[in-house]
Amino acid sequence: MYYHVNGELVPADEATVSVRDRGFMYGDAAFETLRVYGGTPFEWDAHRERLQRTAETLGFADAVPDDLRDRVDETLAENGLDEASAKVSVSRGVQPGKLTPGADVDPTVVVTCTPLPRGGRDGQRVWDDPAAVQTVRTRRIPSEAVPADVKTHNYLNGILGRLELRRAAGNREAADECLMRDMDGNVVEGATSNLFFVTENGLRIPSDDLDLLPGVTRSVVLDLAREESFPVETGHYSLDAVRDADEAFLTNSTWELRPIASVDGIEVGTGPMTTLLQRLFDERVEAEYY
Amino acid sequence: MYYHVNGELVPADEATVSVRDRGFMYGDAAFETLRVYGGTPFEWDAHRERLQRTAETLGFADAVPDDLRDRVDETLAENGLDEASAKVSVSRGVQPGKLTPGADVDPTVVVTCTPLPRGGRDGQRVWDDPAAVQTVRTRRIPSEAVPADVKTHNYLNGILGRLELRRAAGNREAADECLMRDMDGNVVEGATSNLFFVTENGLRIPSDDLDLLPGVTRSVVLDLAREESFPVETGHYSLDAVRDADEAFLTNSTWELRPIASVDGIEVGTGPMTTLLQRLFDERVEAEYY
Repeated sequence: MYYHVNGELVPADEATVSVRDRGFMYGDAAFETLRVYGGTPFEWDAHRERLQRTAETLGFADAVPDDLRDRVDETLAENGLDEASAKVSVSRGVQPGKLTPGADVDPTVVVTCTPLPRGGRDGQRVWDDPAAVQTVRTRRIPSEAVPADVKTHNYLNGILGRLELRRAAGNREAADECLMRDMDGNVVEGATSNLFFVTENGLRIPSDDLDLLPGVTRSVVLDLAREESFPVETGHYSLDAVRDADEAFLTNSTWELRPIASVDGIEVGTGPMTTLLQRLFDERVEAEYY
Repeated sequence: MYYHVNGELVPADEATVSVRDRGFMYGDAAFETLRVYGGTPFEWDAHRERLQRTAETLGFADAVPDDLRDRVDETLAENGLDEASAKVSVSRGVQPGKLTPGADVDPTVVVTCTPLPRGGRDGQRVWDDPAAVQTVRTRRIPSEAVPADVKTHNYLNGILGRLELRRAAGNREAADECLMRDMDGNVVEGATSNLFFVTENGLRIPSDDLDLLPGVTRSVVLDLAREESFPVETGHYSLDAVRDADEAFLTNSTWELRPIASVDGIEVGTGPMTTLLQRLFDERVEAEYY
């Protein structure tokens, strides 16, 4: 495997950053995870835009290179990958030894990738089963402390959530995803996924004013639902509302739509809305990328 | 300069970690900053203990190597440094591509160092002037989201605080440290320092039940104050209490005690308590490390 580091393709085991890179020292970096279908990154513009927003929030708006898409394409081509997950990172790079960022940024830009199965109508899911979801004590970081709508290398909050799953499971199999609440107890999202659930009144999702990362896949699924005129409600929901749902599923770039089998051991399960949205999603991918 | 990476001394410009190291990808790492006086790390046991606590919180308790102190000593010796700041990092290393940490940890252990002037009674401060301190909007991350009492490579919360200083200053000189509050509005600490202030009733500090990192220097200064039977009160304080203080100062390993010149442009200034505690601190360093 070859990775792209600061404009050069290098063998994966030589792809490194300085120990003084602020990405390593402080997680001071922006990233995006891209799903690549048939050689093309899914929803490139949306990912590029969010990466830019993250870079702006972190104060290195000019650091995202103009040829970023080329670097992704080169990385995929070098590895002969048409079906993949690619990760793009832009860190503030090495600076003099202070926490306060210097205005002069020489960013570190990294592209890595991993093979995945084909997507679309004839595709294969990256997950084996619907997700067992478990609420955790760890709360999402409030946006007053770190804005939730940007995607950075500060990922310990989600890691602590996932670690709770492992600790709680003991010798049993751990749940697949942790369901996280905000400081007020509203359900917000998983460690790496957005939440949808279905009631007799339609599709429901935690709203963007909450401390969550509005995912690209989440946005595509919302568009699909609206195109079909399914009733969609965004709002603030309790855990009970999710546990009582008729159906529920998670979205992210690699899982696409993953049904939720259970929440906190309570069966939720898949259903017609989830199945239909999965089919619409696959058809859209098939039509646009194959 | 030579740094220590995974058991080997390497030239600084060859000191790297994999782009797939979880320290780089997620800030999934523990660290400590050590002040070295006369060739010996100040309060090694306290730093070692906190590093261990951080590693335990992150679920890689066994990753901190037994010979960590030797690695620090070797790094200092190789660089011929007796007066220095050293940074020790332990990351979860490279693991298969999932956010959920694997149980099998091959940690990345890094020691870097920077020359500093001599400390102690005949020493020289690393700062030029008392600190201009400025409150920022960015709040400290609540411990319900990420425990505040551990020191990790997820440092964006403090960086966002420092960026606010730069943005607020415009063309004027930015303040030296941001003063951060918790979600309830209590004053907690700076981005890289703990806060002390002095009223007619004695020394006051935000208490450990707040979302703050109890610093090693803070603990030493508290001991010194108690040995002298100075009245010390720990509690929850508002910004107004700090602005109205007779004296105030910040502590961290490299600043030691740094007087606060002003808070939000309001003069606070140094005074006899700060001066005396600085002298007691210097005397303790002189007696123990030179």
